[in-house]
Amino acid sequence: MKSGAPFTEEELSGVYRAIRERRDVRSGFVPEPLPDNLLLRLLEAAHQAPSVGLMQPWHFILIRSLTIRKEIHKIFLETNQAAQAVYSDDRAELYSRLKLEAILNAPQNLCVVYDPGSQKGHHLGRSTMPETALYSVVCAVQNLWLAARAEGVGVGWVSILDPEAIKAALHVPTCLVPVAYLCLGYVESFGSQPELERVGWEHRSQLSDVLHSDYFDQPYAPGASKP
Amino acid sequence: MKSGAPFTEEELSGVYRAIRERRDVRSGFVPEPLPDNLLLRLLEAAHQAPSVGLMQPWHFILIRSLTIRKEIHKIFLETNQAAQAVYSDDRAELYSRLKLEAILNAPQNLCVVYDPGSQKGHHLGRSTMPETALYSVVCAVQNLWLAARAEGVGVGWVSILDPEAIKAALHVPTCLVPVAYLCLGYVESFGSQPELERVGWEHRSQLSDVLHSDYFDQPYAPGASKP
Repeated sequence: MKSGAPFTEEELSGVYRAIRERRDVRSGFVPEPLPDNLLLRLLEAAHQAPSVGLMQPWHFILIRSLTIRKEIHKIFLETNQAAQAVYSDDRAELYSRLKLEAILNAPQNLCVVYDPGSQKGHHLGRSTMPETALYSVVCAVQNLWLAARAEGVGVGWVSILDPEAIKAALHVPTCLVPVAYLCLGYVESFGSQPELERVGWEHRSQLSDVLHSDYFDQPYAPGASKP
Repeated sequence: MKSGAPFTEEELSGVYRAIRERRDVRSGFVPEPLPDNLLLRLLEAAHQAPSVGLMQPWHFILIRSLTIRKEIHKIFLETNQAAQAVYSDDRAELYSRLKLEAILNAPQNLCVVYDPGSQKGHHLGRSTMPETALYSVVCAVQNLWLAARAEGVGVGWVSILDPEAIKAALHVPTCLVPVAYLCLGYVESFGSQPELERVGWEHRSQLSDVLHSDYFDQPYAPGASKP
């Protein structure tokens, strides 16, 4: 069986818009919770991600409890104290002004977890690159992120956390691996450029800086390459 | 500065269609090469992925040379010989009938590579979860995959490869890491279900099997959770 007609211009432009206008959102969350049907649409989008061998080795923990979010926020504060200690001078000053999470501001948090021990998929495709199972979980995060942007929902990925403390707080079994901790919610607006670029932390590179033809040591050139 | 109006119904539906109808394509590629402007649109989509600290730690090697694709295909054949040896009986018979790559059939291959040594991003967000840098590269792959689906371009991810042999074949420096090897091209059609499900290798799970509320050991229930 085959799937679908070509995408219309507007459907295609929606996909490129979501990719281009997606942001890592840390401020401007509004307290109104997301309705369950919207949350489930986003989670279904995540669950439709590609996975090696159709392994689908992911779990989603949707956190709405303020008590738990306070506990996670405490983990962030402790982790961030050590993280910011490595910077000095202007960079330290700039770091101290960054907003790096929205754990308490976003009414929903989502922890995406990887189960390396799952036998689903019968190990297909994991003989020499077993890490592709983990990559599947990241694809699920990106699906959710893009669907959220199209729905007007902000997503912020918090990586300044201690994974072992997160597991303890959320009762995650020892053998599983937290991959992403996300803050989700309606937002006032989406920035027209990445926040880290706007505040002068880092700039975006050009595609041409990282594009190569046939070999890594050969820059990209248009047109078919030699046979 | 703020970004954009709400997505139209059709733009939103385009995003969900791309997510739902994306397939891991291994057959039905047509020999006509993709035009450069289309390839660059897909690569720009990849390059717009989120990255920890705005690190953008990826490189893209677009492979159109048949000579190189033949070399990669040889690596696949050797790797697959070992990979399939672990199966027995019916599973071995089913494995032998799977089409697991389209390296020679798809006129374009793309190797996506991770540079762990890049200083871009000033190490922001990588103190306790340095693996998020690698995850950024996977997000780039998923961006490209979804844009490709919307453009009617098939993508197949080949993981049955020896990463060291790939690096040698493509002149990738020792300190970099191949993350994904993709086959890209126009296709006759997209299957309505994943190929591995169609042939009986594995079935898709339900979202409800992997969804939890507040704690891993607590199943999802609609509505706001207790404070």
